Amino acid sequence: MTTPIETDVVIIGAGPVGLFAVFELGLYDLKCHLIDILDRPGGQCAELYPEKPIYDIPAWPEISGQALTDRLMEQIAPFSPQFHFNRMVAGFRKLDNGRFEVETDEGELFHAHAVVIAAGGGSFQPKRPPVPGIEAYEGSSVFYSVRRMEEFRDKDLLIVGGGDSALDWTLNLQPVAKSVTLVHRRPDFRAAPDSVNKMFAMREEGKINFEVGQVTGLKGANGQLEAATIKGPDGEVEIACNRMLPFFGLTMKLGPIADWGLNLNENLITVDTEKFETSIPGVFAIGDINWYPGKLKLILSGFHEAALMTQAVKRIAHPDQKLVFQYTTSSTSLQKKLGVQ
Amino acid sequence: MTTPIETDVVIIGAGPVGLFAVFELGLYDLKCHLIDILDRPGGQCAELYPEKPIYDIPAWPEISGQALTDRLMEQIAPFSPQFHFNRMVAGFRKLDNGRFEVETDEGELFHAHAVVIAAGGGSFQPKRPPVPGIEAYEGSSVFYSVRRMEEFRDKDLLIVGGGDSALDWTLNLQPVAKSVTLVHRRPDFRAAPDSVNKMFAMREEGKINFEVGQVTGLKGANGQLEAATIKGPDGEVEIACNRMLPFFGLTMKLGPIADWGLNLNENLITVDTEKFETSIPGVFAIGDINWYPGKLKLILSGFHEAALMTQAVKRIAHPDQKLVFQYTTSSTSLQKKLGVQ
Repeated sequence: MTTPIETDVVIIGAGPVGLFAVFELGLYDLKCHLIDILDRPGGQCAELYPEKPIYDIPAWPEISGQALTDRLMEQIAPFSPQFHFNRMVAGFRKLDNGRFEVETDEGELFHAHAVVIAAGGGSFQPKRPPVPGIEAYEGSSVFYSVRRMEEFRDKDLLIVGGGDSALDWTLNLQPVAKSVTLVHRRPDFRAAPDSVNKMFAMREEGKINFEVGQVTGLKGANGQLEAATIKGPDGEVEIACNRMLPFFGLTMKLGPIADWGLNLNENLITVDTEKFETSIPGVFAIGDINWYPGKLKLILSGFHEAALMTQAVKRIAHPDQKLVFQYTTSSTSLQKKLGVQ
Repeated sequence: MTTPIETDVVIIGAGPVGLFAVFELGLYDLKCHLIDILDRPGGQCAELYPEKPIYDIPAWPEISGQALTDRLMEQIAPFSPQFHFNRMVAGFRKLDNGRFEVETDEGELFHAHAVVIAAGGGSFQPKRPPVPGIEAYEGSSVFYSVRRMEEFRDKDLLIVGGGDSALDWTLNLQPVAKSVTLVHRRPDFRAAPDSVNKMFAMREEGKINFEVGQVTGLKGANGQLEAATIKGPDGEVEIACNRMLPFFGLTMKLGPIADWGLNLNENLITVDTEKFETSIPGVFAIGDINWYPGKLKLILSGFHEAALMTQAVKRIAHPDQKLVFQYTTSSTSLQKKLGVQ
């Protein structure tokens, strides 16, 4: 049996709002564990627009998504948050002692006074291509990401897509796989030109195949893929393959949180505007994932929500302590926590 | 008759929250005039702690009040806000055409679609020392600030206080005045040591007088001060003087806004959490001056309130336009307004 990690707060989502929640909770000595499906902090900011400038963060006339993430990581460093990346939240239940248990898809267990959902637009999930019957092969022959390259050794690979993921994995898996066929609906690519050039060079050398077209059907049995039908400008061809990697981009879904019994409003979690608490007491939702009258999906609103949520979490975690609200500018005790005194 | 300045929005208060409101309103082409009792932007941040670090501005691990003000001024520069400093709001009324008229104590008139109160803790006003009958001399012989030094030429000055204002004006007015007496309740000063040393040097040279004690009474008639009684450790002395400058610090008062008929909660303005609108439709209150359940007096909360208020003001100013909510990261039209496209 897994030993649960005992903590004050579990934060689901390590985007800018989840990160700033660590700061606000830390001012009240509340320790946080963060769970995120991505492999690093920053959420959408780091995943979708790391280099694009943002202009509406107060007192930052211009800041990139990555720089915003970096500055927030610096700001919360004094509170030593614990990150659990590449994890999805799988289980959730209220314990008899009033605390909550959160389980990840890797089996870790967390016990906490409160759960803060800061999951932005939801969890990033790969888009499924419109190929009839593809579900039957998922997890056995069809994969949407490469966790370990060795799983593709000596396989006949079909890689589908025209972006960086498709091109990068074509180049990286070519030496490992028995054969690689790249399929894209047109000969133009959104990927980095250098990768595209390298791919065409490999094709010239006969190391990979490239087909223009779309996958219209799969052949196989019991989840074991045998071939794919490609419909191109000159008709249909059948390509033998036993592994398929479609890279059609990411979409965002609420995921398993949708099954927790929270009140929802069009896939967003309804909260009050005093504590940003959901319909389950002790479970909070902040940032783009929540809804209340007037809600704007702005990072700066998530920051505000994190601050007000913290006051409520403190009352749950330490019901007997008098709640003293202090300012970082004047409180020596807060400044000690921040390591500047 | 004064010609009114026609604009979209009048913002009362040019502290950080009033400044950021210019940004949010500017994204929707709403032009702003700001009125502030201080002589520069920044409000409390610039007045009370320009050099003290603030640690809880998101993505700013440490920033001084002055630097925060400077960055906000840079961020709103593309929207050319118009500032009216050293002004207090004196009059307010709703016009027949649905717009509002705001008048300053200097007689300027503004006509606007909406009024945004971002006045922080209220207007800074000098503290009145506890001297019986002092009110009778205010404005004629007793002044709480020095607007023009010439007004004190050849006067017998009594300066009271132990902070920087008292010491600085002692040093600066000494060459202008006929005589200067500084009174402070003890021989220790809160002022900069350099100013204190200079003052004692002047006293050695016989250029100024310094008395330890407290002003307990004033003598004079028809607002014309003739002498003050100082009670010190060795008894009472009478000092001849015809001008008195007490520097007992600043206090914050809601001021004339209290008479507008707004719903108040212990001197704070009650607002909703959807639009941050007061009990008078079209009049909004954001930042430390408002109250709603869960309210925290944090700068970052004022930023959030400015963003949500803006959506409501846009509907008032342009009721026929479809309200399109866009992101600065992706909208070319917003980027053009910001001057980065």
